[in-house]
Amino acid sequence: MTELEALAELAKRRGFFFPSNEAYGGTAGFYTYGPEGAALKQNLEDAWRDIFVREEGHMEVSAPTIMPEDVFEASGHLDGFDDMIIECSECGATHRADHLVEDAVEDVEDAEALDTERVAELVADHGIECPSCGVALADEPVDEFNLMFGTNIGPGSSSPGYLRPETAQGIFVEFPRLKEYARNQLPFGVAQIGTAYRNEISPRRALVRVREFTQAELEHFIDPENDDPPLERVADVELPLYSAEQQQGDGGIQTYTVREAVEEGVIGSEWVAYYLGRTMAFYERIGVDMERFRYRQHLAGERAHYAADCWDAETELGGNWVEVTGFAYRSDYDLKKHGEYSGEEFTLFRQYDEAKTVERATVDPDMSYLGPEFGGKAGDIADALAALAGRDRSAFESAAQRDADGSSGDEPRDGDTVTVDVGGESYTVPVEKTGFSVDEQTEAGEHITPHVVEPSFGVGRLVYSVLIHSQGTDIVDDEERTYLDLPAELAPTSVAVFPLMTKDGLDDSARDIAQELRAAGFEVAYDDTGNIGRRYRRQDEVGTPYCVTVDYETKETDTVTVRERDSTEQKRVAVEELSDTIERLVDGETLADL
Amino acid sequence: MTELEALAELAKRRGFFFPSNEAYGGTAGFYTYGPEGAALKQNLEDAWRDIFVREEGHMEVSAPTIMPEDVFEASGHLDGFDDMIIECSECGATHRADHLVEDAVEDVEDAEALDTERVAELVADHGIECPSCGVALADEPVDEFNLMFGTNIGPGSSSPGYLRPETAQGIFVEFPRLKEYARNQLPFGVAQIGTAYRNEISPRRALVRVREFTQAELEHFIDPENDDPPLERVADVELPLYSAEQQQGDGGIQTYTVREAVEEGVIGSEWVAYYLGRTMAFYERIGVDMERFRYRQHLAGERAHYAADCWDAETELGGNWVEVTGFAYRSDYDLKKHGEYSGEEFTLFRQYDEAKTVERATVDPDMSYLGPEFGGKAGDIADALAALAGRDRSAFESAAQRDADGSSGDEPRDGDTVTVDVGGESYTVPVEKTGFSVDEQTEAGEHITPHVVEPSFGVGRLVYSVLIHSQGTDIVDDEERTYLDLPAELAPTSVAVFPLMTKDGLDDSARDIAQELRAAGFEVAYDDTGNIGRRYRRQDEVGTPYCVTVDYETKETDTVTVRERDSTEQKRVAVEELSDTIERLVDGETLADL
Repeated sequence: MTELEALAELAKRRGFFFPSNEAYGGTAGFYTYGPEGAALKQNLEDAWRDIFVREEGHMEVSAPTIMPEDVFEASGHLDGFDDMIIECSECGATHRADHLVEDAVEDVEDAEALDTERVAELVADHGIECPSCGVALADEPVDEFNLMFGTNIGPGSSSPGYLRPETAQGIFVEFPRLKEYARNQLPFGVAQIGTAYRNEISPRRALVRVREFTQAELEHFIDPENDDPPLERVADVELPLYSAEQQQGDGGIQTYTVREAVEEGVIGSEWVAYYLGRTMAFYERIGVDMERFRYRQHLAGERAHYAADCWDAETELGGNWVEVTGFAYRSDYDLKKHGEYSGEEFTLFRQYDEAKTVERATVDPDMSYLGPEFGGKAGDIADALAALAGRDRSAFESAAQRDADGSSGDEPRDGDTVTVDVGGESYTVPVEKTGFSVDEQTEAGEHITPHVVEPSFGVGRLVYSVLIHSQGTDIVDDEERTYLDLPAELAPTSVAVFPLMTKDGLDDSARDIAQELRAAGFEVAYDDTGNIGRRYRRQDEVGTPYCVTVDYETKETDTVTVRERDSTEQKRVAVEELSDTIERLVDGETLADL
Repeated sequence: MTELEALAELAKRRGFFFPSNEAYGGTAGFYTYGPEGAALKQNLEDAWRDIFVREEGHMEVSAPTIMPEDVFEASGHLDGFDDMIIECSECGATHRADHLVEDAVEDVEDAEALDTERVAELVADHGIECPSCGVALADEPVDEFNLMFGTNIGPGSSSPGYLRPETAQGIFVEFPRLKEYARNQLPFGVAQIGTAYRNEISPRRALVRVREFTQAELEHFIDPENDDPPLERVADVELPLYSAEQQQGDGGIQTYTVREAVEEGVIGSEWVAYYLGRTMAFYERIGVDMERFRYRQHLAGERAHYAADCWDAETELGGNWVEVTGFAYRSDYDLKKHGEYSGEEFTLFRQYDEAKTVERATVDPDMSYLGPEFGGKAGDIADALAALAGRDRSAFESAAQRDADGSSGDEPRDGDTVTVDVGGESYTVPVEKTGFSVDEQTEAGEHITPHVVEPSFGVGRLVYSVLIHSQGTDIVDDEERTYLDLPAELAPTSVAVFPLMTKDGLDDSARDIAQELRAAGFEVAYDDTGNIGRRYRRQDEVGTPYCVTVDYETKETDTVTVRERDSTEQKRVAVEELSDTIERLVDGETLADL
C-alpha cells in the first residue's frame, strides 16, 4: 500500500475525509470532512488566521460564494478561466486534453501553455487514445471549457451568476467600502477563508484536484511606489527555492535566505519574498515536512491571467509535487478592471509629502455659439474640447505666438481655431469660443490604484499534505504501531482520557477529569472500550498527542498516568496539576522536560 | 430612523455587513460580512459549537454545498421546495404571490398553505396590483417556483446538481458512514455549520430573507422506542411558548417550564422539548433580548414536507417576529427516503435486550420442476414464491389440516398448491415443489431506521437579531452615546488599547500592552487617533466591552485606566495584572466587583 492509499483508507475508516454521496454512486471531485477531518481543518484555519490576520493586523471578511456575471467579465474569468477539453465521440467521456498530452509526450511538461490547435495536433501525432474506452482521439477537437459553475440568480435566466472560482473577487469588488474601514490608508490587508469552486474536467488525486474546496486568501493592498514590506523581519529565513532558471536548466532546489533571494534577484518582488519568508513559519507550525517542501517559481507560460510574478509552495505527496499555496503579485490588474467595468472608483487618494502646484488646462465653451452652429452635436463637441484640453493643450495655443516670443502661448489670439473629431467627423471651432484657459492648482495628492500581493492557500491540500507527512509506523512493545505525529495545535483531539476499568468508580473519576480538561479549553475524548494498549493505538492513529489513564493508584495518590504519543513515554502527574501539565505539553514541552 | 434603519447604517459604516456587489448595482439577497461582522459571526458560531457539539458530545462534519440531483429527488426538495410566483406581463417583475395576498387580504395570514389556484383567485378578487408598475395582476397565473439554485457538475448537462437548500442533507446522505464513527450506537448527533442557498423570489429585510446564508444544524439520530432525552437537565427551564392553540384563539405567549409543557402536552415531542429548553441558554449567552423572544408552534398547514412536529424560535425585530431557529421532529422521513432511492442501508442494528426466537418461513423451489414447467418465467416465479412465504406463509399451509386438527399447519400435504402472480399472470405450483419450510431462528436484534430531531439555526438571522437587540443610546458626559451591549464573548474586539498621546513613549507602551493582550488570546484593537472621548465612542459603537488607556501616570506607577463600556466606569489597574483583570471581566465580573 502506498502512503496515499494508506491515508485514503485511514481517512475513510477514522473519519478524516471521504468521497461524498457514495450511497448514490459518488460525485467525482467532492469530499466530505468527517468529525476528525473537520476538526483538523478548523484547527489549521485557526492557525492561519492567527498568523495572517491577527499577527499581521489585517481584516477578515466573509463574502457570498455566488457572484453575478458582471464581476467575472471584469475579472477575466468568463473569458480566460478555461481548461482544454477533449470528448471521446465513442464513449462520451471527457478528458483534460493537456494532461493526456503531458502523460503521453515525453518532452511536453506544460501543455497548458500551448494553444488548442497545437494540443490537438499532439493528440493526433502521438496516437493518444481515450483513457476510458481505448479508441483513438486523433479526430476529436480540443476545446476551451470554462471551469466556473454557472447558475441563475432569481427566477428566469436574465441574471446569470457563477460560483466564485477564488475567494479573492469577493474582496476586490468591495474595495470601495473596505478602504473606508482601513481609513483610506495603504497598505492594508483583507483576508478571507471560504469556499471556492472549479468545475474540473477530471477531478483526481483525492483532495488535490476537487471541484469544491476551501481557500484562505489574503489580498494585501499596497502603494507600489511608497510601501515596502518589513523585510528585516524575515531577512534570515531560509527558503528552499526552485527557480524558473533552475527548472529550465534541469537544476534542483537551492536554499537562499530571503535577503539573498531579493539581492540576487531570484525573487522579483520584495513583497512576494516577504510572504515566502513569513509563510515558512506557518508550514512548520501546521506540521508540513519541510524536507518535502519547496517554493517553485512559475514559468512564463503558466502564470494566471492576472499575475505579474508567481511562486507556488509545493509539498511532495506520494512522489508528486503538489501546489498548496500560490504567491502572486497581481499588480493593479483586478482593481483597474473592476474600476473600468463598474464605473466606480477603485482607487485611493495618495497624499503628496508636499502639496504640488500644477497647471491645469480647462475649457468653458460658449454654448450660445456652439448651439446654433452645430445643433445636436454641440454637446458632444464641447465634451471633445474638454478632453482635448486635458490631453493636448497645445492644440489651443497659438503656434505663431510661441514661435515669435517664446512665451508659453497660453493666451490664444483672435483667428486661431481648434479642430476636434466627433463620430468620425471633424469640427473646427474658434479658440476664443472654447473658453480655454490654463490655471494653477494646488494638489494635495492623487488618486492611485493600489497593487495587490496575494498569498492564496488551498486549505484542503494543506490538510491532505499534513496528514500524509505526519503518517508513520514504528515498533512499540513488539508490535507495529501506526501514528500521525500531528502538532498538538492541529490534532482533532488534544487529550484522551481512559479509565483502566469501568468499575470501582474509575470511570466516574475519568469522566470528571475529562470534563475538567474540557472546561480548561482542550478537545477531549473519553474512551473506555478495549484494553489500554488498544486504546492508545486508536488515539495514536488519529494523532492525539496525549492520553491520560485513571487507575487504582489514582484513588490512593490522586495521580494519573500521562502518556505521550511521540515518545510513548509515561509519567504520573497529580490530578490537580493535570490541566497545567497538558497546557505545557501542548505548548511544546515534552514529558522528559517536566 | 427606525431601529432597523439605524442598524443598517451602522452595519455599513462600521463594517458589520452590507449588500454585496454594490459597485455593480448590487445583487439582491446577497450580503458581505465586513471585518466587524465576520468576527462577530465567528464568535457566535464558536458559542454554538461549544454548546451543541462540545457540551452535548456530538460530532461535527463539513460536507460540500453542491450535491447531485439524486439527493434532492429523494429528499423531496426537487418536487416540494417551491414558492408561489406571479410574473407581471407588463413590466416583467416577479413576486411572491402568497406574500402579495397576505399583504392585501386581511383575513389571510398564511397564504403559503393555500394552493396556487386559490391564490390566483384571491389576487384577482382583491384587484391586487404589481408592486413594481401598478398594473393589475388579475390575469396572471400563479406558478410553483423551485427555490434551489441549479448548476451542472462536470462538462455538459448530463449531471445536474443543486446548491443545498439545507446543510442537513449533507449529513443524511452520509449516514451509512457516520454511524460507523458512532460505533453503531444510538443516540448520536452530527452537527454542521455551513452555507445553504435558497433562490428567493423576493429577497428582503436585510439578513432575514437572503439567497445565501449560513446554517448551524444538528441532526440528532435516536431510537424512537428506546431513547429518551435527558429531560431532567432542563425540566425547570422556563419557555415562552406561543402554541398553535393560542395562535388560533388570538391568545398570547404563555410561560411553561419544560416539565409542564411536556406533561400538559403543549409540546408533542420530548426531544423537541429538550432542545427548546437546552437552547434557551444559548440565546441568552449570545445576547438575544429574551423580552423580545418566543417559541412559536407551527400551524398544521405550514410544516415542512418532512416534519412531524415543529416549533420556531422567533425574535422581534422592528415590530416583526422573525424565525431564527427551527426545531423539527423529522421522524425517519429522510433516512427512509435515502434508503429507498439509493438502495443502500440507511438503518442501524438495534440489539434486543434478550435474543428472540422467531419462526421464519422460507422456500427452496425445485428448479428441475419449475424450469421445464414455466420456462423463462421460472426464476421470477421462484422469487415470487420467496416473497409470498415472507409475507403470508398461510398460503403454503393446508387449510384443511388447520381446520381438522388445529395444528399450525406448517407441513403441507400432497396435492396442496400455491398460486403467485408474475407480470399480471397467475402461476400455480404444487406446495411440495416449493421447498417451503418454517424454521426457528434466534435473532439478536433488528434493523431500524433512526428518527431525527433537528434544531436548525439561521446564523445570519441570529447575528442580525443580536445586533438589533444590543443597540442602545444613553447620555454620557452630557452627550448622546450610541452603543452595542454585546456579550464580551461575541464582541468583535474584546479590548481596545489607547495611548493618551502619540509621544513621550506612550504609544510604544500602548503597543506593547496591546501585543501582550493579544498573546494572552484577546482580540485587541489599537487606536491613537482623535481625543480619548471620541475613541471610547468609536469602541462603544461596535460593542467593544473594555478599553485600556496608557497615560503619563503609567510611566510612574505602571498602571493603566480600564474603562467598562456598560457602566462607563473607570479604574486604574496594574499593568502586570491587566491580562488577568480583562479575563475576569470577560468571564462576567464587573469593574465594581474588582
